[in-house]
Amino acid sequence: MDAVLGIDIGGTNTVIGLVDRNGSIITDTSVPTRGYAGFEEYLAAVKSEVDILKTNYQRYSICGAGIGAPDANHYTGVVAHAVNLDWECPVDLKSGFSVALGVPVAVTNDANASAYGELCYGAGRGVSNLLQFTLGTGFGSGVIIDGKILAGATGFAGEIGHSILIPQGRKCGCGRRGCVETYVSATGICRTVQELLCTYQTSSVLRSIPADSLTSKTIYHAACDGDELALKAFDKTGEWLAWTAADAVTYLSPEVVVLFGGLAHAGDLLMTPFRHYYDAYCMEMFKGSVRFGFSELKEADAALLGCAGLMWDTLNEKA
Amino acid sequence: MDAVLGIDIGGTNTVIGLVDRNGSIITDTSVPTRGYAGFEEYLAAVKSEVDILKTNYQRYSICGAGIGAPDANHYTGVVAHAVNLDWECPVDLKSGFSVALGVPVAVTNDANASAYGELCYGAGRGVSNLLQFTLGTGFGSGVIIDGKILAGATGFAGEIGHSILIPQGRKCGCGRRGCVETYVSATGICRTVQELLCTYQTSSVLRSIPADSLTSKTIYHAACDGDELALKAFDKTGEWLAWTAADAVTYLSPEVVVLFGGLAHAGDLLMTPFRHYYDAYCMEMFKGSVRFGFSELKEADAALLGCAGLMWDTLNEKA
Repeated sequence: MDAVLGIDIGGTNTVIGLVDRNGSIITDTSVPTRGYAGFEEYLAAVKSEVDILKTNYQRYSICGAGIGAPDANHYTGVVAHAVNLDWECPVDLKSGFSVALGVPVAVTNDANASAYGELCYGAGRGVSNLLQFTLGTGFGSGVIIDGKILAGATGFAGEIGHSILIPQGRKCGCGRRGCVETYVSATGICRTVQELLCTYQTSSVLRSIPADSLTSKTIYHAACDGDELALKAFDKTGEWLAWTAADAVTYLSPEVVVLFGGLAHAGDLLMTPFRHYYDAYCMEMFKGSVRFGFSELKEADAALLGCAGLMWDTLNEKA
Repeated sequence: MDAVLGIDIGGTNTVIGLVDRNGSIITDTSVPTRGYAGFEEYLAAVKSEVDILKTNYQRYSICGAGIGAPDANHYTGVVAHAVNLDWECPVDLKSGFSVALGVPVAVTNDANASAYGELCYGAGRGVSNLLQFTLGTGFGSGVIIDGKILAGATGFAGEIGHSILIPQGRKCGCGRRGCVETYVSATGICRTVQELLCTYQTSSVLRSIPADSLTSKTIYHAACDGDELALKAFDKTGEWLAWTAADAVTYLSPEVVVLFGGLAHAGDLLMTPFRHYYDAYCMEMFKGSVRFGFSELKEADAALLGCAGLMWDTLNEKA
């Protein structure tokens, strides 16, 4: 039976899954992403895992491998600069993996892969225009237009987390200031708490925690306990997310926006202010046109399934 | 010889052009857009103009009509609410024109039509990913992705002029506040002058002009004469345009951004500050990836040619 590999390259581990046409993960395994002498040694480790997998699942014939990696170029499959990978860059994932594994390869970045996973097998099934926002350490985004990943002229389009909310705002890892991800992310909400601690004099359990130790989980629990400042931090985050979503809808008019990642687990704490502000920020003509929902995939599987889905669709196009 | 009609429906006039495959306008004519008893009477006036045109240009066989109109839905061809048209809405341009003219019809909004004109016959020839910003009374935008007009789920995507720069900012005609078009447009720069007149005490020729009489042309001429406040207004406008462009590039990664409309004629007065700020606002990975240029079409022809080009491409797809 035909199957493809989905290979999700994370900063710590690379997860390798064998996936059938229906998006069922037949089996998965992983290798560390770091700690090799170089990219060739890493590839050899992946290949040896795949060989074991082939031996154990002989009834499946592997027809391709979809690969997702941070900062990977959607067209070329090259990682030019990767903050979270320790290979000497640039690295050509597309030709590297296709030579090592001996099958056709499709590559995209990790955020696009998650969005494509929702499109094929998750909250975006049956939809052609979809956005996915990953509210994790940063703000990842994947954009699907007419059923395809938006990559633009460079292969790097769809970086909504790096659109600028406030030009003189918070310093961003990208070198600029005021990007969405400095406000709407797990680290963003921690920075927001610092801002609120300075602006207000309200007493709060968060005053006893050093900035270095503060996490979005602590803020979540404080908010659940009714801490005013923590609630205010979620309110502000919901407003910034609403502004971002309203702009994204004005640009792209998706049918579905899928929220994903740690901060999305805050549920109503985030979504109640979000809905309130979104109603104010959304342009009249787009009101009611978008469904906001949470991921319908297991967090660890979304990118893997997206990689597999991308490979299946690439094979279908060529057929 | 085959030809198509390009029909550019403006607030005042409807321009009808006969266009060949190379984008040459063989002839054009126009009828008023307003002043009819209803949409049917308007259609009859267009049809009678087209009949005259057919009689005079019998060697051309008309195979379709591409139509551009404010607020027209790209998919359905329906105008649901049109601020600048006096027909009773909704109006179905697609079926109305195809019945009246007896040919296949393609419809899009005016901003998309201009962008498509640049793609087919202007500054975007040979390019697949293009944005066009029309800096007129408002801020119009058309987005081309992989050679196609971006319309999204609703048919109304690509409204970059209504992304929000400053949530508590200037009141916009759309009912919200702080949209790009309240800053980056001919009316926007007039509002900016009022803001600067309040902020600074610099003497300026603009202090003698009532707000009601101020135009972007007056500001342009004052800036050319070295008026400090007028120059500052262009500097601010250039900065807001740079912020908008940097965000648009982060979202869409186009190859070309075409600037169009009255304010674009200010040339270096706008572009010198624009380039300065764009360099600061642009994300590192997109630096050098975008060509910013002015329209290469006569202003009156861009939308007409875009309509014709859209019709040609629709016919080619069906062939």
